[in-house]
Amino acid sequence: MSDTKPFLSDNAAKVHPKIWEAMRAADNADAPYDGDALSAELDARFSDLFGRECAALWVATGTAANCLALATMVQPHGGVVCHEEAHVEMDEGGAPGFFLHGAKLMLAGGESAKLTPETIRVLIDPIRDDVHQVQAHAITITQASEYGCVYSAGELAALSEFAKARGLGLHMDGARFANAAAHLGGSAKDTAGGVDSLAFGCIKNGAMSAEALVLFDPEQADLVKYRRKRAGHLQCKGRYLAAQIHAMLDGDLWLANARAANGAAAEIANGCGDRLLHPVQANEVFAKLNAHEREALRAQGFDFYDWGTDAARFVASWDSVPEDASALGKAISAL
Amino acid sequence: MSDTKPFLSDNAAKVHPKIWEAMRAADNADAPYDGDALSAELDARFSDLFGRECAALWVATGTAANCLALATMVQPHGGVVCHEEAHVEMDEGGAPGFFLHGAKLMLAGGESAKLTPETIRVLIDPIRDDVHQVQAHAITITQASEYGCVYSAGELAALSEFAKARGLGLHMDGARFANAAAHLGGSAKDTAGGVDSLAFGCIKNGAMSAEALVLFDPEQADLVKYRRKRAGHLQCKGRYLAAQIHAMLDGDLWLANARAANGAAAEIANGCGDRLLHPVQANEVFAKLNAHEREALRAQGFDFYDWGTDAARFVASWDSVPEDASALGKAISAL
Amino acid sequence: MSDTKPFLSDNAAKVHPKIWEAMRAADNADAPYDGDALSAELDARFSDLFGRECAALWVATGTAANCLALATMVQPHGGVVCHEEAHVEMDEGGAPGFFLHGAKLMLAGGESAKLTPETIRVLIDPIRDDVHQVQAHAITITQASEYGCVYSAGELAALSEFAKARGLGLHMDGARFANAAAHLGGSAKDTAGGVDSLAFGCIKNGAMSAEALVLFDPEQADLVKYRRKRAGHLQCKGRYLAAQIHAMLDGDLWLANARAANGAAAEIANGCGDRLLHPVQANEVFAKLNAHEREALRAQGFDFYDWGTDAARFVASWDSVPEDASALGKAISAL
Amino acid sequence: MSDTKPFLSDNAAKVHPKIWEAMRAADNADAPYDGDALSAELDARFSDLFGRECAALWVATGTAANCLALATMVQPHGGVVCHEEAHVEMDEGGAPGFFLHGAKLMLAGGESAKLTPETIRVLIDPIRDDVHQVQAHAITITQASEYGCVYSAGELAALSEFAKARGLGLHMDGARFANAAAHLGGSAKDTAGGVDSLAFGCIKNGAMSAEALVLFDPEQADLVKYRRKRAGHLQCKGRYLAAQIHAMLDGDLWLANARAANGAAAEIANGCGDRLLHPVQANEVFAKLNAHEREALRAQGFDFYDWGTDAARFVASWDSVPEDASALGKAISAL
Repeated sequence: MSDTKPFLSDNAAKVHPKIWEAMRAADNADAPYDGDALSAELDARFSDLFGRECAALWVATGTAANCLALATMVQPHGGVVCHEEAHVEMDEGGAPGFFLHGAKLMLAGGESAKLTPETIRVLIDPIRDDVHQVQAHAITITQASEYGCVYSAGELAALSEFAKARGLGLHMDGARFANAAAHLGGSAKDTAGGVDSLAFGCIKNGAMSAEALVLFDPEQADLVKYRRKRAGHLQCKGRYLAAQIHAMLDGDLWLANARAANGAAAEIANGCGDRLLHPVQANEVFAKLNAHEREALRAQGFDFYDWGTDAARFVASWDSVPEDASALGKAISAL
Repeated sequence: MSDTKPFLSDNAAKVHPKIWEAMRAADNADAPYDGDALSAELDARFSDLFGRECAALWVATGTAANCLALATMVQPHGGVVCHEEAHVEMDEGGAPGFFLHGAKLMLAGGESAKLTPETIRVLIDPIRDDVHQVQAHAITITQASEYGCVYSAGELAALSEFAKARGLGLHMDGARFANAAAHLGGSAKDTAGGVDSLAFGCIKNGAMSAEALVLFDPEQADLVKYRRKRAGHLQCKGRYLAAQIHAMLDGDLWLANARAANGAAAEIANGCGDRLLHPVQANEVFAKLNAHEREALRAQGFDFYDWGTDAARFVASWDSVPEDASALGKAISAL
Repeated sequence: MSDTKPFLSDNAAKVHPKIWEAMRAADNADAPYDGDALSAELDARFSDLFGRECAALWVATGTAANCLALATMVQPHGGVVCHEEAHVEMDEGGAPGFFLHGAKLMLAGGESAKLTPETIRVLIDPIRDDVHQVQAHAITITQASEYGCVYSAGELAALSEFAKARGLGLHMDGARFANAAAHLGGSAKDTAGGVDSLAFGCIKNGAMSAEALVLFDPEQADLVKYRRKRAGHLQCKGRYLAAQIHAMLDGDLWLANARAANGAAAEIANGCGDRLLHPVQANEVFAKLNAHEREALRAQGFDFYDWGTDAARFVASWDSVPEDASALGKAISAL
Repeated sequence: MSDTKPFLSDNAAKVHPKIWEAMRAADNADAPYDGDALSAELDARFSDLFGRECAALWVATGTAANCLALATMVQPHGGVVCHEEAHVEMDEGGAPGFFLHGAKLMLAGGESAKLTPETIRVLIDPIRDDVHQVQAHAITITQASEYGCVYSAGELAALSEFAKARGLGLHMDGARFANAAAHLGGSAKDTAGGVDSLAFGCIKNGAMSAEALVLFDPEQADLVKYRRKRAGHLQCKGRYLAAQIHAMLDGDLWLANARAANGAAAEIANGCGDRLLHPVQANEVFAKLNAHEREALRAQGFDFYDWGTDAARFVASWDSVPEDASALGKAISAL
């Protein structure tokens, strides 16, 4: 693959050397499941990071993290409001239907895959308050959004206030939480706003197989522990997952990696001009590019996904080569 | 932990150096999910091992492997026959109820946690053939059993014949499949008999986070792929799981590790004499030991689980220190 | 209620005298569940009606009938294509999510709540053939549609051909099947086209508590029997449900009742002129009427539902008083 | 069937004339679903009967009533303690697995199919308090039990106290609640003890298709309403079900019918002497009878179920002919 310059997906990025080190060091611990010290320390670690009490558990995928949180927030006969282009709706193979025992995803609109109180109101206000129609029990938002856009502290406050007023839970899919935090200046607290639960993504950001599920409601955390086991997600050797998460937080590696990825995306965006379909605030670039143009870029060794028939998606990751990113930006500019 | 001699659980064993090497080497692959070459090669690898066509997928836990197999073998309104002390019934937090959408575990008896056609007949023959009673759709057996006992080739043939005659699927929980194979002389084929699916355990045997789910029915394999994603078990960076499984098979590391564990268990068993509650055929030893005796052993640094009020369970693993095992055997003998 | 002229819902209509007679006569049968002769004869009865072999079972609600059919046609990880305004999506309280174990409703468009091969193609062709996206397993259509419109024999043939070509099951929600059949000239066979299963509605058409679920695939029928019991829908005294269905078919009471209802709806439609939002082909009339106009109608004793802010829905039933219907038509015309 | 003397099942009994009258009278109501006055009055009716506030809903089967109650009392990852011979375990086709989304039935022992605090303790005390084992969330008992035995007020108080102490919900399957109440002197309150919910059976006792689900916790009642709809159990013409329940309560028809059935059972029991396998306290008689003896009884026109190989079950119902019952008692005595 020596000539390929990959901007296909941050899912395929390498594991960061510090993550490897931390995993190797975990060999010496010896309690099974989550009985080890590293797993036990996650609660305190994230309570520090967010400045409020929380519980934190490792799971192997963002899908599991999101669904475990939602399943303990929503009754099977209820519904979850999400953006109509949200990952849970589009790309999780029906996982919410499975974990939530058939609860309904209720699809709202919004610019750049971001929900607002107004787009949610348009969806749920017409629902009759009777048993014939599914009632919303929670909202899930994605930070950064599926189009690489970031909810500001103000937008989060408005959503949180709305959710509380309506008695709805509020979950955040943070598969690219670090990239959002990097954009917002590095405060985990500001980036999460007043959510009830958060899937704190590590895998796209240089970990191997661990996401942190952060729960700000201790009762929910207790339920999630049972549900994680029941879903086959309580791994025998959990210390290796906990180690990845600790390493990600140590010395703010999570922010450093995200800044690298965001920086590479900015380099690409620099060459896109009017082609940009969404503001580039994290590590993803969506650009108008026709089939001919995409072919030309691929001929130069750039790898990426088509986005429909007239656009492309470029995703930078912590290990993107800066020269590749600026080369891509220039190549697009030169089309 | 320098003074502790751990025989608590093979779940807590270290990751084998060759597994680490293989994972590190996988850094250089770059396709997300299971799109990488290592994942793709698993089918061929296990088809070779078992001498018949099969598909093989990685998953992170035995619970997931077992439940994904059973969920695609059993209708939600059906049932799965398992031993009344089987891991799926006792220790998986209700995972079968979740993955199988409420299908029923139907509990049969049998010596040393092993099912026989006769114990299954006693359970299912009285079931009326009507819609008021749950009908069995499949059988699951554990190789080696929860009491460390191994199904012989003849016993497996009888079960397979019985299952076919009754139109029942046959799954094998092989969390300690390698230990069983080591006992039977090393043939994977003989150890699996005519099962339809097998959870080929790696984690207790020196891997970190990968089990192989082996499916001998290609239609079932197709379903399992959808269900794995839906259960949040399709990891982004699957190449690191595939690498563990390949390393386990390379040069028969799986058998070497299992032989080491079985050997350590045999050393312990040597000291147990009449105390043994079950034949020691794999890496587990169940021995009659009263509270006073257990305390005496713990005072010498041995770590293990109580098994009820009058017995103890000792589990050896690939990294058990041989001297510790023989010391434990002698200590029991000297009680 | 002497002064009210009810056009609110056919759900609230009286039970027809012949249905009462048939139920009373069933007192003399004596087998529990569906072991009685009346229940057993349903298969033959509907095989005659449709001119092809089928199985037929009673259930108490259309929701149960639709969901039992779909649950045995669709894997939990799959999806069902329905119209975005279909009853299963809008008004069944999430029942499909429950019965189908979290399978997804996939929403397509179409005039007057009727699907076409083209509207389905627009929905499902962009779905990638991978495990990340939910794949369609079946289609459900409503005959007559939620807007009182009828699929013609030609439209049904096109849908059936499309479904077969794509390997999708085809179910028909026939809550108002009789009204559709009356519109099409009375042939049950033509009205059902080539569907795999049909909820043959009786309750809106003068029965008390029995719908017939008709299954043209014998294997599916066998599964449905288990699922009906499992859903708590196998009533102890099923003979009283079977009796209602038989009475509905005797002497084509089903068609006579539907013709009466359709006739009343036509009378109402006569007065609507340009106000009509959909062709009136069955027993429902949707008409543009502002709040002031609706108030005027209610002041004259007519009862009906608002349909959004600018329209009303009138539903006629077998026991609608013809004079009330023509009075309503005239009242609308006079607005 | 003129010569048959049926003691097969109270499930097949005729509908009582007063039930028919009440249903016919409901023709004149006109609100769909449970919007009618009869349905609305059930709460007050049962609050009177039990002397404490409750909500009451109609459903068509005992299976649905039990499962809706339990599903709103138990998390999907939890379990329900029931007797190992309870109807929910043996004869509901896996309905609890469906309604409770895979929660586990946990089987306890007890004489004559009655649970006691002690038999429950034996079952649940050994369960480790961790996520690997399913934890009990509720208990369900059957009044009268599956062997026709009645929980006394004292036994109920002990169970209720135990449930509260352990934080477990307590549900009562009252398929034959009336027969139990008749045995205990007629007090509904004493017969229900301190349960949280009760399936108040009507169908075996002369109704056609309505059981009352009585909920003493208003929050649970709210959930049940959503779940009833979602399970396809909210019938369009609910007034006909509500009417049956009102008629059953009017003038204590429920007690009169139960007394008739219990009386007939007592006549049968009179002839059984040492053959009785369980005390006869309600309307069921279980008697030791070999195949030859059963054949002799059948030759005299008595109809009943074999109970295993060496016994028979006789069930009397409200419409059992007293002469038939005493004839059966004499015939058994004369064997």
